Amino acid sequence: MSKVTRRTLLAGSGLATAAAAWPGATTPAAATAPTAGQQLPGVYRYKIGSYELTALHDGTWYRPIDDKFVRNAAWPDVQKALADNFLPTDKLPVPFTALLVNTGAKLVLIDTGTAGQLAPTAPGIGPSLAAAGIDPRAIDIILISHFHPDHINGIKTKEGQPVFPNAEINVPAPEWAFWMDDAQLSKAPEAARPGFLNVRRIFNDIAKDIKRFEPGGEVAPGITSIAAHGHTPGHTAFAVASGNQSTLVLGDTTNHPWLFARNPDWQAIFDVDGAMAADTRKKLLDRAAADKMLVQGYHFPFPASGYITRRGSGYDVVPVMWQPAL
Amino acid sequence: MSKVTRRTLLAGSGLATAAAAWPGATTPAAATAPTAGQQLPGVYRYKIGSYELTALHDGTWYRPIDDKFVRNAAWPDVQKALADNFLPTDKLPVPFTALLVNTGAKLVLIDTGTAGQLAPTAPGIGPSLAAAGIDPRAIDIILISHFHPDHINGIKTKEGQPVFPNAEINVPAPEWAFWMDDAQLSKAPEAARPGFLNVRRIFNDIAKDIKRFEPGGEVAPGITSIAAHGHTPGHTAFAVASGNQSTLVLGDTTNHPWLFARNPDWQAIFDVDGAMAADTRKKLLDRAAADKMLVQGYHFPFPASGYITRRGSGYDVVPVMWQPAL
Repeated sequence: MSKVTRRTLLAGSGLATAAAAWPGATTPAAATAPTAGQQLPGVYRYKIGSYELTALHDGTWYRPIDDKFVRNAAWPDVQKALADNFLPTDKLPVPFTALLVNTGAKLVLIDTGTAGQLAPTAPGIGPSLAAAGIDPRAIDIILISHFHPDHINGIKTKEGQPVFPNAEINVPAPEWAFWMDDAQLSKAPEAARPGFLNVRRIFNDIAKDIKRFEPGGEVAPGITSIAAHGHTPGHTAFAVASGNQSTLVLGDTTNHPWLFARNPDWQAIFDVDGAMAADTRKKLLDRAAADKMLVQGYHFPFPASGYITRRGSGYDVVPVMWQPAL
Repeated sequence: MSKVTRRTLLAGSGLATAAAAWPGATTPAAATAPTAGQQLPGVYRYKIGSYELTALHDGTWYRPIDDKFVRNAAWPDVQKALADNFLPTDKLPVPFTALLVNTGAKLVLIDTGTAGQLAPTAPGIGPSLAAAGIDPRAIDIILISHFHPDHINGIKTKEGQPVFPNAEINVPAPEWAFWMDDAQLSKAPEAARPGFLNVRRIFNDIAKDIKRFEPGGEVAPGITSIAAHGHTPGHTAFAVASGNQSTLVLGDTTNHPWLFARNPDWQAIFDVDGAMAADTRKKLLDRAAADKMLVQGYHFPFPASGYITRRGSGYDVVPVMWQPAL
């Protein structure tokens, strides 16, 4: 938020006369309407052909970051990228937005959110789903981009109950192979162990019901999976197409665009293979820019939908204008 | 929307294998959830000091435009600015977003929206107010930036009933002087007459209750008016300040930022004094950029809040990131 005070504004602008004291300002009156004190759930609908898509905001994690956050960039450059976009320079707001696709016949949920288990300012997609009028029991198909906690934790409650009891859960086979492999777990560095254990917490007792797909084919009506490995070994993007329209669901191909679209070569600390992640990112963003494709980015500012455009040595996101009607 | 088909995406991307037909796709099933078919009302809250502000989306007018829309720019340049931002080149989406300020003691509404009288895709701020839980009768103070219909029509229903019966309505004195002057009406060109008549429709029978203020002073607790003439003769901006935070409410100082922030010298067809409007715009945007001020723009994409940054020979808007909590 701006630190410019009213005094600064008025003194500096040369536009104002001496501000007369407003009579009511010195005598506190009874509030006519108490402040609401909270945001409304973030829900944004749009059409792709005959499909109705709903961006479901989960919340935002204000993640403390330091000079280790981007592995291959100088810390002052990272701080400048943050400051240029009016963000704090010691923590990165990481928003989460899942995507619901209503094909008319099937309700498909792409990634499931944090389930409120990551940050107090990220309650999960429950409130957004409710505001959109969707009963979790109505979800037919779940598609998972990768196995990081903010994408899979929504599958279960904290107590281990299934949140979407009627959904068929589809995951990338190479993602399953990596995270469920005990050899990978045993050789993982200490800091990476909780991620492996979390995957087991989510999947161990429902393993037989999980469908594993090889990226590259259709995984739901009109939805094609696209291998986009690097961020994690099996990280997968999706293309949703209906009629002559489509949107490219990037998942974590690009984390916060103000850092990683502008600087596509930067490698974030949570990339399993940073070089491959950067390569995949540039390939997908290049394609999206060339074809003027609509994209949906899991960590883009809500509603997380926009277009990619080339800018200097990187890319920029032109967010969609909020549409009042579908 | 993107015209890239799934076929194009898959054929061109080189990332996908041959798409296997998904079994369910060919056999239409009963819809598990009917599509909603409509957007939720646009409501976005944020804090300025102890004040709670609520951006209230009214809707968007998809205004057909042609080579006369920007008076002093070549039509291909205007079309390029639109295309660069993934907008259609024959119509400009003009969104409307009013701002509610809850000071804790007073509910202040800055501009009142279209009342659904301008475009079918702009129902007015009624649905947003309702979604925010605000009864129009609770509004204490209305501040008007200028007398164009999309700012004043919300004062009354189509049938002429007051929408905010308990609100004190404050308008810029120079705006009143211009639009209510019969001499101005009689010398106005034919195309401008409806605007003058609309002002009379709104204000004639409540004229004695309207408070006229000279821009430059405090007009409500913590809210200062700032002369920003040109777009109309009495057009006025507002600064909302509480604690050590503030936001500059630009009104129509800048219409759609993708045209008029990027190209601050462009003069829109609806500017009464285009040169003065451009001068005022550059003065305010310059100040906002230098002081890293948060701004609210009536015709900025919802939630219409962001920061101004210099870019090339013009400015850019960095939209705020949607905050899940206040």
